[in-house]
Amino acid sequence: MSLTAQLYWAEHAWLGGTVEPGVALATAPSGRITEVHPGLAAPPIGAVPLRGLTVPGFANAHSHAFHRALRGLSQVGGGTFWTWRDGMYDTAARLTPASYGALARAVFAEMALAGITSVGEFHYVHHRPDGTPYGEPNAMGLALAAAAEDAGLRLTLLDTCYLAAGFGRPPGPRQLRFSDGTADAWAARAAALPGGGTFLVGAAVHSVRAVPAGELATVARWAADRDAPLHLHLSEQPAENDDCLRAHGVTPTRLAADHGLLGPRTTAVHATHLTDDDIRLLADSGTAVCLCPTTERDLADGIGPAAGLRDAGAPLCLGTDSHTVIDPLAETRALEGGERLRSGRRGHFTPAELLGAAGAAGHAALGRPEGGRLAAGALADFTTLALDSVRTTGCPPALAAEAVLAAGTAADVRHTVVAGRHIVRDGIHQLLPDVPGLLDRAITSLHHTA
Amino acid sequence: MSLTAQLYWAEHAWLGGTVEPGVALATAPSGRITEVHPGLAAPPIGAVPLRGLTVPGFANAHSHAFHRALRGLSQVGGGTFWTWRDGMYDTAARLTPASYGALARAVFAEMALAGITSVGEFHYVHHRPDGTPYGEPNAMGLALAAAAEDAGLRLTLLDTCYLAAGFGRPPGPRQLRFSDGTADAWAARAAALPGGGTFLVGAAVHSVRAVPAGELATVARWAADRDAPLHLHLSEQPAENDDCLRAHGVTPTRLAADHGLLGPRTTAVHATHLTDDDIRLLADSGTAVCLCPTTERDLADGIGPAAGLRDAGAPLCLGTDSHTVIDPLAETRALEGGERLRSGRRGHFTPAELLGAAGAAGHAALGRPEGGRLAAGALADFTTLALDSVRTTGCPPALAAEAVLAAGTAADVRHTVVAGRHIVRDGIHQLLPDVPGLLDRAITSLHHTA
Repeated sequence: MSLTAQLYWAEHAWLGGTVEPGVALATAPSGRITEVHPGLAAPPIGAVPLRGLTVPGFANAHSHAFHRALRGLSQVGGGTFWTWRDGMYDTAARLTPASYGALARAVFAEMALAGITSVGEFHYVHHRPDGTPYGEPNAMGLALAAAAEDAGLRLTLLDTCYLAAGFGRPPGPRQLRFSDGTADAWAARAAALPGGGTFLVGAAVHSVRAVPAGELATVARWAADRDAPLHLHLSEQPAENDDCLRAHGVTPTRLAADHGLLGPRTTAVHATHLTDDDIRLLADSGTAVCLCPTTERDLADGIGPAAGLRDAGAPLCLGTDSHTVIDPLAETRALEGGERLRSGRRGHFTPAELLGAAGAAGHAALGRPEGGRLAAGALADFTTLALDSVRTTGCPPALAAEAVLAAGTAADVRHTVVAGRHIVRDGIHQLLPDVPGLLDRAITSLHHTA
Repeated sequence: MSLTAQLYWAEHAWLGGTVEPGVALATAPSGRITEVHPGLAAPPIGAVPLRGLTVPGFANAHSHAFHRALRGLSQVGGGTFWTWRDGMYDTAARLTPASYGALARAVFAEMALAGITSVGEFHYVHHRPDGTPYGEPNAMGLALAAAAEDAGLRLTLLDTCYLAAGFGRPPGPRQLRFSDGTADAWAARAAALPGGGTFLVGAAVHSVRAVPAGELATVARWAADRDAPLHLHLSEQPAENDDCLRAHGVTPTRLAADHGLLGPRTTAVHATHLTDDDIRLLADSGTAVCLCPTTERDLADGIGPAAGLRDAGAPLCLGTDSHTVIDPLAETRALEGGERLRSGRRGHFTPAELLGAAGAAGHAALGRPEGGRLAAGALADFTTLALDSVRTTGCPPALAAEAVLAAGTAADVRHTVVAGRHIVRDGIHQLLPDVPGLLDRAITSLHHTA
């Protein structure tokens, strides 16, 4: 949390759908924006200048922090989503609270460098490898919370119920540490998580594959009782749809709807392979959809029906998921690009829609509807993108959003402010100055664990 | 050209398909590599250290330098390839030899910063806007040659024959400046271009739409007489195929084959919408294919049959084309990613294939088969990618290629050496230190031209 009021001055800022020059942003110790003054040609005295385009901080609505350790390694050989998952489980098997905390701290710091101010960690590595609880049953989740605090990010810990290997199948040997045995046991453990301030607790159903249908309502009720976000992986792969139809005679979306999982606090992750009925069920229930386009490309999942979901009324947000890259602008570009590749037409999402998916919609999906705007009362979370790099230069300022969405990257992030606090300044993380070193040490020591 | 011998030491280098530590690369004033010594743990005295992964310089086998002025702007609104083309023509109408030279110099410098050592400029803005020649009929092409020299890049000027608006249709008002009237007039003008050293001259047929079938052989013969590269846009859009079938009863690929355009010196650009017969014609004739995946996504062209062409035996190379981004690693990632999205499977191209497409195959397509290898006798063109950025760190060195291909970007390019000369050093262009400023001024003044 910011301890003092701080005044910032954005050379250009994204205000209500247009780029405005010279905008003062006053922040309070509460971590909120208190005033927004456009039209100031130069920084007021005492203001921190933010050169470039300042936009609401990005929300990374779907993250598995430990997947960062697989970047590059998982490119060896071919295979499918399912063979990739075997390698991912090998890494999951090595995690301890200490090693996971160190890795997550570095990964969350990489996110701050990419302009991300809030992360939703879809967390299911709960117990020791043999499935027995740690002395502190939430040791892993608490390690993630400490990591986010160290990195200066807001965290919504989406504590995940994961009980089965598939429809009617008990967890496999490497899934034992994910499982609490029953949804009630999951609920009791998750209820002991604290939360507050920049750390929120939400719930997740890993997928309709991994939680028996009869236990889904327990998770839904837990989230409803707390007015907390509820996330679930949904129809990432055709095989999930096939298995669900075989087991229950309905699609995963219909199964989720029938067990009370859908609604305005819910976010369905991926939603790559949907029927028209599924799209209507999601949109009509107010369920948000978190697309993870760079991961869905990397894992050969396919191109999800993003425009169709948007047209039906489902809020869209974005996540870097497997962290093959951590770059919200790569996600927005792949979101729009996927629609172009499918349709043969350009211009499916406006800049406001793309920045909203990377920002406001993600913050809302993570339980913070007060995020994602540069306005008095909103969270004082923002990020500044260079307009003078070789990638982004050359556009008139009024089209600065188009320029960064077309060609900007995480390397163009100059500043990140979280709760009024200047976490990334001129491209340097102020709390953890050597993020590459932290990443390298955390990943290397993890792979060297016996 | 390098004036002295220079010794470099690569911390890691891509040698014959594997990453080797500690590699000395000796270069001669001829611009060639003279010696390669792996296994040196520290830089020899006098060697310039290149920290990171050094790979053969990237070849940008398909560029329209002036399209860089449209980055961001062309994202406004929706439409198709064809409506995008209208905006592109507006920009083409504004170019003069001076403004085009200034823009191209900045764009080529942006390419050097992205690790590109050689560019193929598919050049068709030949004459004054009304179609009359400049006093120096090759004023535009010579401006491009000077721009490449200023930026330190090798240039293959693919002087383009562009005579028609479509099958049986004369050039439109904004295409007048592209046209030499006849292929013979094109040939006479192009023959007056000098060339030599880092500047090569090749030929291009804009497309089978833009050169009447009866004139295609003239261009093919011109290139054959000079043993020069011959490029053509091919089947980027379904409409070209439809129009060609209507006009000639055959696909564009078959028409090109029937008029002697295909063969080992030829590169077909895009090749997005092909029949199985087209693929066989290209591969069996030894024709290379230049894919431009980020442009093909941006322009909603679609996903080309890259793996199918590779399996059939066609060499694949890459281009940044419309420069929506200038990042060879974005192209390799989109090449592999496109196949994943289409097939539902991962791992279609090996790192050697991807780096070969971005390097050796592109150099060959641009008339320099002696490029694209770190070996004695090869062109002394290489680039070094950081392995210690947040994006690329965390992989064992043996998987450094996988790491940069998975997550590296143009922002991770530390060094670029062309013909032995250190053009980009620690991310700074040594000949043109303020590339963003050059880009901004060139683009802004172009859009302000009456």
